Amino acid sequence: MESTILTINNVWMMICTALVFIMHLGFSFLEIGLTRQKNTINILFKNFFVITAGLLIYALGGFNLMYPGFEEDSLGIIKFAGFGITPPEGGMDYSYADGGYTWWTDFLFQGMFAATAATIVSGAVAERIKLSSFMLFAALYVGLVYPIVGSWKWGGGFLDSIGFYDFAGSTLVHSVGGWAALISIYMLGSRIGKFDKDGNPNALLGHNIPLASAGVLLLWLGWFGFNGGSVLSADPAITSLTLVTTCLAAAAGGVSSALFSNFLYKNFDITMFMNGILGGLVGITAGADQMSPMESIIIGLISGVIIVYGISLIDKLKLDDPVGAVAVHLICGIWGTLTVGIFGDMASLSQILIQLFGILIIGVFCILSSFILLIIVKSICGLRVSNEEELRGLDVSEHTMEAYADFRTNQH
Amino acid sequence: MESTILTINNVWMMICTALVFIMHLGFSFLEIGLTRQKNTINILFKNFFVITAGLLIYALGGFNLMYPGFEEDSLGIIKFAGFGITPPEGGMDYSYADGGYTWWTDFLFQGMFAATAATIVSGAVAERIKLSSFMLFAALYVGLVYPIVGSWKWGGGFLDSIGFYDFAGSTLVHSVGGWAALISIYMLGSRIGKFDKDGNPNALLGHNIPLASAGVLLLWLGWFGFNGGSVLSADPAITSLTLVTTCLAAAAGGVSSALFSNFLYKNFDITMFMNGILGGLVGITAGADQMSPMESIIIGLISGVIIVYGISLIDKLKLDDPVGAVAVHLICGIWGTLTVGIFGDMASLSQILIQLFGILIIGVFCILSSFILLIIVKSICGLRVSNEEELRGLDVSEHTMEAYADFRTNQH
Amino acid sequence: MESTILTINNVWMMICTALVFIMHLGFSFLEIGLTRQKNTINILFKNFFVITAGLLIYALGGFNLMYPGFEEDSLGIIKFAGFGITPPEGGMDYSYADGGYTWWTDFLFQGMFAATAATIVSGAVAERIKLSSFMLFAALYVGLVYPIVGSWKWGGGFLDSIGFYDFAGSTLVHSVGGWAALISIYMLGSRIGKFDKDGNPNALLGHNIPLASAGVLLLWLGWFGFNGGSVLSADPAITSLTLVTTCLAAAAGGVSSALFSNFLYKNFDITMFMNGILGGLVGITAGADQMSPMESIIIGLISGVIIVYGISLIDKLKLDDPVGAVAVHLICGIWGTLTVGIFGDMASLSQILIQLFGILIIGVFCILSSFILLIIVKSICGLRVSNEEELRGLDVSEHTMEAYADFRTNQH
Repeated sequence: MESTILTINNVWMMICTALVFIMHLGFSFLEIGLTRQKNTINILFKNFFVITAGLLIYALGGFNLMYPGFEEDSLGIIKFAGFGITPPEGGMDYSYADGGYTWWTDFLFQGMFAATAATIVSGAVAERIKLSSFMLFAALYVGLVYPIVGSWKWGGGFLDSIGFYDFAGSTLVHSVGGWAALISIYMLGSRIGKFDKDGNPNALLGHNIPLASAGVLLLWLGWFGFNGGSVLSADPAITSLTLVTTCLAAAAGGVSSALFSNFLYKNFDITMFMNGILGGLVGITAGADQMSPMESIIIGLISGVIIVYGISLIDKLKLDDPVGAVAVHLICGIWGTLTVGIFGDMASLSQILIQLFGILIIGVFCILSSFILLIIVKSICGLRVSNEEELRGLDVSEHTMEAYADFRTNQH
Repeated sequence: MESTILTINNVWMMICTALVFIMHLGFSFLEIGLTRQKNTINILFKNFFVITAGLLIYALGGFNLMYPGFEEDSLGIIKFAGFGITPPEGGMDYSYADGGYTWWTDFLFQGMFAATAATIVSGAVAERIKLSSFMLFAALYVGLVYPIVGSWKWGGGFLDSIGFYDFAGSTLVHSVGGWAALISIYMLGSRIGKFDKDGNPNALLGHNIPLASAGVLLLWLGWFGFNGGSVLSADPAITSLTLVTTCLAAAAGGVSSALFSNFLYKNFDITMFMNGILGGLVGITAGADQMSPMESIIIGLISGVIIVYGISLIDKLKLDDPVGAVAVHLICGIWGTLTVGIFGDMASLSQILIQLFGILIIGVFCILSSFILLIIVKSICGLRVSNEEELRGLDVSEHTMEAYADFRTNQH
Repeated sequence: MESTILTINNVWMMICTALVFIMHLGFSFLEIGLTRQKNTINILFKNFFVITAGLLIYALGGFNLMYPGFEEDSLGIIKFAGFGITPPEGGMDYSYADGGYTWWTDFLFQGMFAATAATIVSGAVAERIKLSSFMLFAALYVGLVYPIVGSWKWGGGFLDSIGFYDFAGSTLVHSVGGWAALISIYMLGSRIGKFDKDGNPNALLGHNIPLASAGVLLLWLGWFGFNGGSVLSADPAITSLTLVTTCLAAAAGGVSSALFSNFLYKNFDITMFMNGILGGLVGITAGADQMSPMESIIIGLISGVIIVYGISLIDKLKLDDPVGAVAVHLICGIWGTLTVGIFGDMASLSQILIQLFGILIIGVFCILSSFILLIIVKSICGLRVSNEEELRGLDVSEHTMEAYADFRTNQH
């Protein structure tokens, strides 16, 4: 009987792992779609790097840094359980993780999450970061920063002890990626042409909206696994509630962004619709297992408004975030983390304060780490391509290739 | 034991829900691929609207209109169980729906279906409908017409009582969408340039066949969940038979359309191949749980021929259906519904008559509803964009954006 | 209890079937992305043909040729269990296949595999093979060669008896497709312009790298089902180990190809990254159920190096393989088959010899069959389009259509 239950739970968790994996295609499509043609291959290369190298790094050390097994009396801040991955005694039995999954599935599900955090950065720094610098930074961030922060809550560390709650990672995944995105774009500066002499932003138009849209729908699909798998078993009531809250928040976020931006700017802006959906998804992620349908819709509606203001705010700060990563992942990540104290089963003032404390401490750590790592990376290989390379496009300058070689010769 | 069975069934149904969700990406790709570049963003916007607003509307009222719980002695025509969604007592237990799924999964699976019906319309009316008019019509159709028709059979209403059978919705989903598509294109008129002065049709070429093809394969994938999930449990024999019949009908439909159109027109036409696959899928949908492999192949082969003639018929009627939605969803939907009386376990003359009756009564209701709703919509905000806007393309005129902004500047 | 276990296993196997199905979208994207725009529709048409006709052929005879049920005392070389598919007594019960799946699922999962083998050929012969010739060859190869070879091992034939091991088909699927690809491109000759007068290769650039990249990620996703489903049940320990080894080998293959080709050619080549990932996936396929994580990484790393040399080798042999199918599927398929004797639970010299024997005997059979079938096909309808048609592109010459009709008129 126990082996039967383990088998079902494990099937669900493997499917969720596959769904989180396909988010990497979603991110790829979103990022290339919202940027210019001349940097397409560069972005795809970065995405391939993150999912492959990210997974290897997580296997070699990240997993054991994130789930080190803190001792009862430890401070729960940092511990490393050693290199490589070897299943513990009983890691394939019902006794492991209450029969929610096998240890192998545990590793792979978490590995797919880890790669996600670095992918969030990839979009924000697109079109001007040096490839080698990005690869180095992403490797360090996935290998060190993400697992350490993760260990504080999901690894049973000090944030877990004080009652901080983050169901599927509004903070632990999305804000952790979002902070790095924010610091990176601050240090990199804006793309040539993004702001005019008077500091007014220009739209550098995305070159493939169909792929960007597909990216959003693939990310939404992936979120079935991202949130649904964070139940860590196939418990029918909680998994299905989680999917309902996730989808309703996504829907509400999209509608809200689309209508609110139409109200402000008198235009049906599809990029707002897309980022609204993503904002709703990030917003529900911290509490997807405990909101009612109506609360999820409210969380999504507010996320949609946050997206519209957030994207405008980034522009006003003269920061250049080609895909809206900071608004989606950082700002809605913070909002989502707070909702756990505002709505649902855990709502209370003290919970809000605990959530705020977690947001703050993780924010400080991610900001400092990002700065330090970027300074190290800069000193090793620089951060930004030359103006010439940027104008020419990173596809030709870093890869001597074009994404759509043939479209020129299509013209007879 | 019961909770174990519920858990497995629910896992299957959640996966099927995710698969039906991804059909929306399939529809998006199909529709933009088969239409012109200048209307791409507009179509994507409509698709985003349908999946997001459709789901919200279904949560707010549609679900309770479709599954109202008719009283024993009621006529089974219409009942509304109230706004919002609240799980009933025991909605997460084995006692609900024979342990086939939880109430949350029930809602979400049905919600994904509901949005599908409106998406079918979206393709047919592409390239000339006003965005606001489409949004209003889609909202009303998903919120009122689709659930009322659904309640007649799946909600246990009068068509269910008389033995009408529609396993996964050849009529309840596809024809319901198809009738609205037919009435809409009749009322909208054809796109500028579709018919010449003598009424001969011109091909207005689709601009992205790779994406259209991907759409077809994604729809086929989604149909694993659409039909597989309509078993409403993970029963191994029936679910696996359903997948076999679904795939064989799709395969046969595609081969049949491709070869038959090649026989008629001496050309290997990939859009016929694509629509043949979809026609086979729609054709098997009503009886996918009770056909033999050979019967499924026959149903698919005939669907493929229907597609070739159906698309030609629409042209002859001077109707303009850019994606072939009427032939695929309406005509093959009717064909599929009839097959239940012709092939399989339920084949009998009386069943054919019952199926015909169901097709007829639903057809009349959908035609009338579509007319009335479209007249209301027209009186509020008009139906069609101006000639100028249409020629310029809806992307620029409704969204001030281009789908592939950069491809112009690719030409040095 | 038994029916419960069957239900879980069957759910997993149906999902894996769906995942293998979506590999056909992955192959489509990869093949069109890496070739020229003017042959896009032709390639898509071939892919549609393979998945549809392939499945029908497999239903009509292939399945019964591959799983004929050899008698105890037979040689185990060839047997045909008759046309059509009819479930055996008890095919839906736990008694069938140790409760791993129903007979329907068995057929469909195997049917999706069968179509894969022909798709591998499709990419290699792209841009110059006659459509009718390809369709005839593919039908014969899927209907005869693939099932006969399959019967030797998976159908319980002589290779199974001597202990040959091929978990998910490094040889039985990938090399079988790869040999046909090799012989086909040898007989077809290279595309016009691929080699200059002195025999130096020119790069004929792929026209849509985003879609090619998406194809790789979709193939990786599909491999969750390809390898995960080859466990033939949802056994939690083995399925989850299989997914871990599969993903780690893919990741290692990609990183290895990207870095090694950068070391050799001083360029970050995304097509090498893509083929490295695929090489790693093919390399792990024969032993995915029995490697440790570290062994999988090693297998992947070596696969990545093989890809770089393999692609260069094909060029040196003056063979023209537009998508790298021979390096990925044939060479890495051979490598993967050998790894079963080198690493993991079965490692031994005698196992290496057995693996070599299997590779050899299957190679000889596939080479001879491919030659014979291609000669027959050639005598019936020729192999190659005319130079004129090739230069003009097969989309116009075979389909009178363009893949991106509108992109010309985008230029104002």
